[in-house]
Amino acid sequence: MEQSRFETGLELLKKIDGEAGQKVIESLKDICPDLAKYTIEYPFGDIYARGGLDLKSREIATIAALTALGHCAPQLKVHLNAALNIGYTEEEIKEVILQMSVYAGFPAALNGMFSFQEVLAERKE
Amino acid sequence: MEQSRFETGLELLKKIDGEAGQKVIESLKDICPDLAKYTIEYPFGDIYARGGLDLKSREIATIAALTALGHCAPQLKVHLNAALNIGYTEEEIKEVILQMSVYAGFPAALNGMFSFQEVLAERKE
Amino acid sequence: MEQSRFETGLELLKKIDGEAGQKVIESLKDICPDLAKYTIEYPFGDIYARGGLDLKSREIATIAALTALGHCAPQLKVHLNAALNIGYTEEEIKEVILQMSVYAGFPAALNGMFSFQEVLAERKE
Amino acid sequence: MEQSRFETGLELLKKIDGEAGQKVIESLKDICPDLAKYTIEYPFGDIYARGGLDLKSREIATIAALTALGHCAPQLKVHLNAALNIGYTEEEIKEVILQMSVYAGFPAALNGMFSFQEVLAERKE
Amino acid sequence: MEQSRFETGLELLKKIDGEAGQKVIESLKDICPDLAKYTIEYPFGDIYARGGLDLKSREIATIAALTALGHCAPQLKVHLNAALNIGYTEEEIKEVILQMSVYAGFPAALNGMFSFQEVLAERKE
Amino acid sequence: MEQSRFETGLELLKKIDGEAGQKVIESLKDICPDLAKYTIEYPFGDIYARGGLDLKSREIATIAALTALGHCAPQLKVHLNAALNIGYTEEEIKEVILQMSVYAGFPAALNGMFSFQEVLAERKE
Repeated sequence: MEQSRFETGLELLKKIDGEAGQKVIESLKDICPDLAKYTIEYPFGDIYARGGLDLKSREIATIAALTALGHCAPQLKVHLNAALNIGYTEEEIKEVILQMSVYAGFPAALNGMFSFQEVLAERKE
Repeated sequence: MEQSRFETGLELLKKIDGEAGQKVIESLKDICPDLAKYTIEYPFGDIYARGGLDLKSREIATIAALTALGHCAPQLKVHLNAALNIGYTEEEIKEVILQMSVYAGFPAALNGMFSFQEVLAERKE
Repeated sequence: MEQSRFETGLELLKKIDGEAGQKVIESLKDICPDLAKYTIEYPFGDIYARGGLDLKSREIATIAALTALGHCAPQLKVHLNAALNIGYTEEEIKEVILQMSVYAGFPAALNGMFSFQEVLAERKE
Repeated sequence: MEQSRFETGLELLKKIDGEAGQKVIESLKDICPDLAKYTIEYPFGDIYARGGLDLKSREIATIAALTALGHCAPQLKVHLNAALNIGYTEEEIKEVILQMSVYAGFPAALNGMFSFQEVLAERKE
Repeated sequence: MEQSRFETGLELLKKIDGEAGQKVIESLKDICPDLAKYTIEYPFGDIYARGGLDLKSREIATIAALTALGHCAPQLKVHLNAALNIGYTEEEIKEVILQMSVYAGFPAALNGMFSFQEVLAERKE
Repeated sequence: MEQSRFETGLELLKKIDGEAGQKVIESLKDICPDLAKYTIEYPFGDIYARGGLDLKSREIATIAALTALGHCAPQLKVHLNAALNIGYTEEEIKEVILQMSVYAGFPAALNGMFSFQEVLAERKE
């Protein structure tokens, strides 16, 4: 059932980051609500909801990929928040970003680290 | 000490994948031994050797990034082997690759999965 | 319904390229059948099956993107075949690839064109 | 003749987007007028001016590629405007961007959609 | 010796761009001082400090790569400044950026050129 | 004059690499001769033929960019040959590739170095 994948995804997103799911829905509601629907259904309802890999490991994979790709700062920040929410320490997250200097170069790692600095500053406010 | 970073890195590489370190050195010895030296010193001697994140998490981050970047099949295969060597199950590794369909698109995930299929086939031989 | 998205996607893939859907399923059946399932469900069952844009336009978009990204030759070849199957002329397809020299550089366009040459040669056999 | 390629390109750009050509020339006139000249000559004077593929299809290809590449927001916005100017509906354009979630991942599609939202807002002013 | 690679790198950075090294250290001191250390040690202490290629050629290589990759504007601007500091003319730098239209497409070249325009404006202040 | 840009480009390509121009024309003559024409006209007839930057510096920029982008091995090999032809030493070329580990990560640098090893082997035959 379409709706059930959506519900599963939204519930999971809520667990990871209380606001992130609603924010995605809100930000796309005037331009393309279907993209919000798919963004919750496939990534979260289908993929994150699978067994076989714990949520912490999934967040590491996502942070690594988004740091390495380099053109996804807004999405990286969502997942940096999510990682903190599910119990990662700041140190662990920094290690993941730092390691990307090896695979995607120093600029990608530096830009990822500055995104994390913004996330930490926003959470303090 | 230069040498100590190299030794640390080589030792760590040996623990992860008995042959990988020697293979890198061997493959570059005629063309650019310094690149082998740096590849062992900085990624492994400096980064992987750091505390703050366990080796399993580091391998997840690397597999995610190399699958997402899409143009690093040989290095991805080295780390898919490494992940199996340090105790990942095949299922966990497949989950990481599968998840990259979300962040880097289905072609990147498909090509990563085919690389893993090659690795598993080579290990059976 | 999960199955219905899969069925819709598979049917659509069959219409585009009689063999492509089965080939994807076949190629992944030993390593990760779920990736085949998702590859048919989301891209074809959800996205290509939407109204709002005709199939020919969708294939142009895909060929453009895969040529520009540059690391997806196997998937590009599937869609070059699909484009021929749904009625594109060779000339139209070449124009799309050629145009990518502007947005992704000449190497990406050249490599895309050589993939198309392979597709045309394989179809002649 | 150099000048004739430039004139052809500029005329075509004017037809697509009354201001875009002059804006490119203006924005580069102090830093590198030759880049403006080439940007009009090769992409528009040579490529877009070719027969063999209609202008609407060319804009789809460009929007797909720029959304997928992910680091070209300013140029994507020019072509989103151009697509609206030559008669695309908002719905058709959204479909192209949405489809990029399949080939370049959800972050690229989300960022492309937000660029389109900006374009639509700017056109209302 | 760790420290000696750091010192070599910092000294070299100071020669290239009086402030760049201190700025990197400053910008990372609260979030990840180790990334500053590595950014000075490996790129500058190890690589730029090598013989075999003059500094001017190294800066060309870096500007070309960062323009082509497209997602590294802050780092590109550091090296555009560095190139001016070590004696490149504005014209030479523009040629390198312009040339990237061939290998990475016109959007990457345009965005690189606009970064250079910002650098030149900042230096005038 | 169209033809004159082509002739200028072809002549320049001949000077850089006696065979490269003819090889491009040959390789595309059945699939898309216009792409060969454009590949000679714009990159070589327009860009490389400009003053303002010497040919050696242009080759460094190209090798750096193609190594960093990572999905252009065939074109990288053409320019590695070209660089040797116009008088670069093997050592200088290796330095450029090595340096890309900093900006695009170690996998890109390793793959670039292996391409150079192939070029050197092919030239010995």
